[in-house]
Amino acid sequence: MKLLRVGPAGAERPALLDEDGTLRDLSGIVPDIDPDLLADAAALGRVREAAAAGTLPVAAADGEPEALRTGPPLARIGKIVCIGLNFHDHARETGAAVPEEPIVFMKAPDTVVGPNDTVLIPRGSEKTDWEVELAVVIGRTARCLDSAEEALGHVAGYAVANDVSERAFQIERGGQWDKGKNCETFNPLGPWLVTADEVADPQALGMRLWVNGELRQDGTTADQIFPVGEVVRYLSHFMTLYPGDVISTGTPAGVAMGMPEPKPYLRPGDVVELEISGLGRQRQLLKPA
Amino acid sequence: MKLLRVGPAGAERPALLDEDGTLRDLSGIVPDIDPDLLADAAALGRVREAAAAGTLPVAAADGEPEALRTGPPLARIGKIVCIGLNFHDHARETGAAVPEEPIVFMKAPDTVVGPNDTVLIPRGSEKTDWEVELAVVIGRTARCLDSAEEALGHVAGYAVANDVSERAFQIERGGQWDKGKNCETFNPLGPWLVTADEVADPQALGMRLWVNGELRQDGTTADQIFPVGEVVRYLSHFMTLYPGDVISTGTPAGVAMGMPEPKPYLRPGDVVELEISGLGRQRQLLKPA
Repeated sequence: MKLLRVGPAGAERPALLDEDGTLRDLSGIVPDIDPDLLADAAALGRVREAAAAGTLPVAAADGEPEALRTGPPLARIGKIVCIGLNFHDHARETGAAVPEEPIVFMKAPDTVVGPNDTVLIPRGSEKTDWEVELAVVIGRTARCLDSAEEALGHVAGYAVANDVSERAFQIERGGQWDKGKNCETFNPLGPWLVTADEVADPQALGMRLWVNGELRQDGTTADQIFPVGEVVRYLSHFMTLYPGDVISTGTPAGVAMGMPEPKPYLRPGDVVELEISGLGRQRQLLKPA
Repeated sequence: MKLLRVGPAGAERPALLDEDGTLRDLSGIVPDIDPDLLADAAALGRVREAAAAGTLPVAAADGEPEALRTGPPLARIGKIVCIGLNFHDHARETGAAVPEEPIVFMKAPDTVVGPNDTVLIPRGSEKTDWEVELAVVIGRTARCLDSAEEALGHVAGYAVANDVSERAFQIERGGQWDKGKNCETFNPLGPWLVTADEVADPQALGMRLWVNGELRQDGTTADQIFPVGEVVRYLSHFMTLYPGDVISTGTPAGVAMGMPEPKPYLRPGDVVELEISGLGRQRQLLKPA
């Protein structure tokens, strides 16, 4: 299923994109797409049955579906854990060694915006950068898992994320990467939360990102150093993962930081578009904060 | 005011410790101690008036107040931002240079437990350490603030935090500190959220921590490299701070990591007690995860 949330920011309603591409309203069946839903197999089953039966009402029956903003596909995210330097080609372009174990940092859930919302360039920023990433959404509480296979069984679904990063804040201002990862609007997510049953192989997904129409990233999750199941297994030994937690699993080569000078960091007016095979497409206009 | 939350984990009720030391039930006035309350001056005013009028019912009128567990004093925390190496004496004991600007890392809100709850030593951990910290709770949305004075006006109150840390996970496992800061139960908070009006000078608070009755940390916020107002001002240029966000402002000298070999890292059965002047006291028993 392709689950999503539509409506004004902070007042989104749950919805489903059916196999015909029709947007269906889920608000009569579940209150929201949130951690409670992901942890509730019965509620998810009701959504699935209603979708199959074709009984869900079409969303925006007022005839203006195009006016419906797409919000982030998940409400009340508990935490967002990110994996750094997780693609061979991206590690190479940054001049970093291939990590021996996953590099872990965090973004606050309040950085999340819808897939087509405006992204704000922070005041004083000169190095705002893009990162197309496969976001993994947890569906079952995970503690100290034994295997990558077991870990994949704790994944509810997948989504596109843009792990927007301010490189000077991240690297040149002392200390830890989190400082350049948590600016307001720095985590466009969605459009959909695609349930895991629809993603046959999370290690075979094409990832592309364009800036002002120019292709900048063109990678595949096949190039991940630590694949999704291993990332979830590994993290579960350092923290407990709960339903509704999100893991951003790293970006392939092609970020501004990895390019020759003058590096083409984002400026107001730039447009970033990104997509992952089967998970949909995002488009963000950059504006000054 | 000393605001707190009492009851079973996940089902705490809002309460107030009045000037006589009597626990008063706030659940008839506000639904919880949470970001909505901190952002609502009128609701906080109603609590203050009821406390002054002496009309609040005594909590646990069933005669078993001692059976009331103290939970974390704040529900639905948005994010927890932590400042590393923020005390001169702690920077010295770790052999680190005094930072030129604040070092920032993050803990997930799901690590928060009550001040007297069990702390779990992660499986495979040999270097679980303690850190008494002054936690600052944000009351007003803060973006790009100009001065430390203005920043202090965005603080709702203060609490005691234990920034429990696994040093091998934090430092020896590659990458960023977050990996050793986010284990389950690694953030005892409370007992109280003391409103900012009751803390005359946040830079004049004694901080003490004992392990098995032996004094290990005995510092003061006067030794902070970046004081509270400056920390809030600084962070507001890298991320937006919202009501209910928590900032842990660093620990003084005396952690296990800073001591001679064999360093006395925490073991199952150890008891950690900590307090900050005017903010109350915590006590945790260590158990294996």
